[in-house]
Amino acid sequence: MDSNILNNLKLTKVAASKIDTFDFENVKFGEKFTDHMLVCEYKNGEWGTLEIKPYAPITLDPSARVFHYGQAIFEGMKAYKEENNDIWMFRPDQNFERFNKSAIRLAMPAIDETRFIGGLKELIKVEKEWVRKGLGNSLYIRPFMIATESGVIASPSNEFLFCILLSPAKSYYAGKIKVQIADYYSRAANGGIGAAKAAGNYSAQFYPTKLAQEAGFNQVIWTDSNHTHLEEAGTMNVFFRINDTLFTAPTSDRILDGVTRKSLIQLGESLGYDIKIESVQVDTILNAAKNGTLKEIFGAGTAAVVNQIEGFSYKDQYYQLPEMADEESYALQLKNALTKLQNKLADDPFNWTVKI
Amino acid sequence: MDSNILNNLKLTKVAASKIDTFDFENVKFGEKFTDHMLVCEYKNGEWGTLEIKPYAPITLDPSARVFHYGQAIFEGMKAYKEENNDIWMFRPDQNFERFNKSAIRLAMPAIDETRFIGGLKELIKVEKEWVRKGLGNSLYIRPFMIATESGVIASPSNEFLFCILLSPAKSYYAGKIKVQIADYYSRAANGGIGAAKAAGNYSAQFYPTKLAQEAGFNQVIWTDSNHTHLEEAGTMNVFFRINDTLFTAPTSDRILDGVTRKSLIQLGESLGYDIKIESVQVDTILNAAKNGTLKEIFGAGTAAVVNQIEGFSYKDQYYQLPEMADEESYALQLKNALTKLQNKLADDPFNWTVKI
Ligand SMILES: Cc1ncc(COP(=O)(O)O)c(C=O)c1O
Ligand SMILES: Cc1ncc(COP(=O)(O)O)c(C=O)c1O
Repeated sequence: MDSNILNNLKLTKVAASKIDTFDFENVKFGEKFTDHMLVCEYKNGEWGTLEIKPYAPITLDPSARVFHYGQAIFEGMKAYKEENNDIWMFRPDQNFERFNKSAIRLAMPAIDETRFIGGLKELIKVEKEWVRKGLGNSLYIRPFMIATESGVIASPSNEFLFCILLSPAKSYYAGKIKVQIADYYSRAANGGIGAAKAAGNYSAQFYPTKLAQEAGFNQVIWTDSNHTHLEEAGTMNVFFRINDTLFTAPTSDRILDGVTRKSLIQLGESLGYDIKIESVQVDTILNAAKNGTLKEIFGAGTAAVVNQIEGFSYKDQYYQLPEMADEESYALQLKNALTKLQNKLADDPFNWTVKI
Repeated sequence: MDSNILNNLKLTKVAASKIDTFDFENVKFGEKFTDHMLVCEYKNGEWGTLEIKPYAPITLDPSARVFHYGQAIFEGMKAYKEENNDIWMFRPDQNFERFNKSAIRLAMPAIDETRFIGGLKELIKVEKEWVRKGLGNSLYIRPFMIATESGVIASPSNEFLFCILLSPAKSYYAGKIKVQIADYYSRAANGGIGAAKAAGNYSAQFYPTKLAQEAGFNQVIWTDSNHTHLEEAGTMNVFFRINDTLFTAPTSDRILDGVTRKSLIQLGESLGYDIKIESVQVDTILNAAKNGTLKEIFGAGTAAVVNQIEGFSYKDQYYQLPEMADEESYALQLKNALTKLQNKLADDPFNWTVKI
């Protein structure tokens, strides 16, 4: 950490916090934000002064590159408050590293650890009242970077804005979901930007996901370019349990290297699970569903942590997964272990939590 | 056209035009804009009032969907001024249709012809002094649509902004370019958004294009998911001439259905050229380059119209195309025929030009 950068941080506080009118009980994920945001501009080849200021609109030239050429990346991470009021981030180093990988893939400048993690810590300190205690409560953190240079010229921007927003998130039981396995549409290309947390990847998913929703499903599980192997869901990596083995696809240039995924793999192994990181064929899952060996499917991502999947469709055929007692479920055991660790209600043998 | 919509158009003019200080001779493509822009908002399931107003920044919530999920599409088209001061658009129906195809693929609302083409006409009428006469001079038109709803929720926006910017463009001879044939990176996936003029597609290209430029090339020619077939360049479709046959790839869900491409195909056929619309293998081009039957490669797109390619590299091997007299070149003949037609210096048997 470069203490100079943090010493020069410019802090402008709101005249009056809106926290007293904030409905923490009924907040919807990602909809409302705290009083302040962190911003930092990139110009003339370097990052400028960190600034924490009142949450406010962004003003850009209508020809700004982000509007025309999609140079935009983001991260999603969470912080938690312990009973004693300490606040903890979960593996911020992972999000920081991934952010810079995304930046490089989109011809955007990498940012230093001080501005990203150091700046985030300062922001959370200012907003500490917004982090609520209790299992499942968290502060969702949204760092992002957009191309701000004007000019409708299809080439990388030379100017960027880095920004962090904070959004209080409530524990919620989303319920089990139904998914559709992609057999025509794709979210990512071989040699494309699927492994980056790039804005453009999400816009590619919306229409096929809408079609899936119209057909009665919540999300799509994406497949490779030949639609023969299972990759990941829209905002989650995916695990498949056949008998007592958990499978998840290896990461690649099409698949986001999820922090939840990698944490669950390590946690699961420490719990003695048999976990195989290998490409999962659609056929394998269809056969396992038919012969009853497919026990569970679940998604893993920062927002929902773990999301159980109750059934899936493939080419208009629906496959329902078997009922299972909660205490038998790998999904629920892993979710329980991970959320307790994140909330400091269990030990953290991996040193994943970082105190603010 | 719905005359009600046009009658309700709200026009706010600038206090003073900046046209007198505008350097039409040295303007760089896409860098500077005219005095006014057209805007229209989509809310509550419908498009609102058309508005022509002074060119001005756009103000959005930092959580606006366009910044996070890349819901953004655009078009690129041109208008030309005839010697008698009539102004003509080139095939605006094609851009209008493609815009709505892009919109659907990105889960954005289609827009009506009155707002898109009718609104554009009104805008150009207001800015008619900005359209300059003379072969090669044109007004570049940039319609675009962005998702404006706030909330970092990975789902389609319910609010959008449609906007048209105008940028005077100067005729320029860019010179022949060198290209690299992609053997690892991709711009589009099977079943992806490559056929849409979506912002995210361009962000995917910047980094590989930067690598190509660092290796001494101007652009990349993209290939299919196995990198065996030639598709298109970053902002141009591509034609290959082997002996006296012109080849260009068929459009697909990975390739933009270029207006210049389809116009050149029709023009070329009317000139008696032998044109084959079929998938072109990388191997075919390599062999043709080696045995001397590869005569020309050129890109086709609105910005440069036709861009001759003097050589290409594939897997670190460079292939130089043969020298050719200008009057032998299909690229130059087609460029000449098309730009004359666009500038009303030649007949328009296809009725492509539309008077304002
Ligand atoms: C496409 C995609 N896959 C997987 C994930 C899960 O990643 P993480 O566990 O780091 O949140 C995300 C992010 O939420 C995502 O957007
Ligand atoms: C990816 C891509 N391909 C091809 C083209 C050419 O299309 P058009 O001739 O309609 O300009 C463009 C647009 O300029 C483009 O962005």
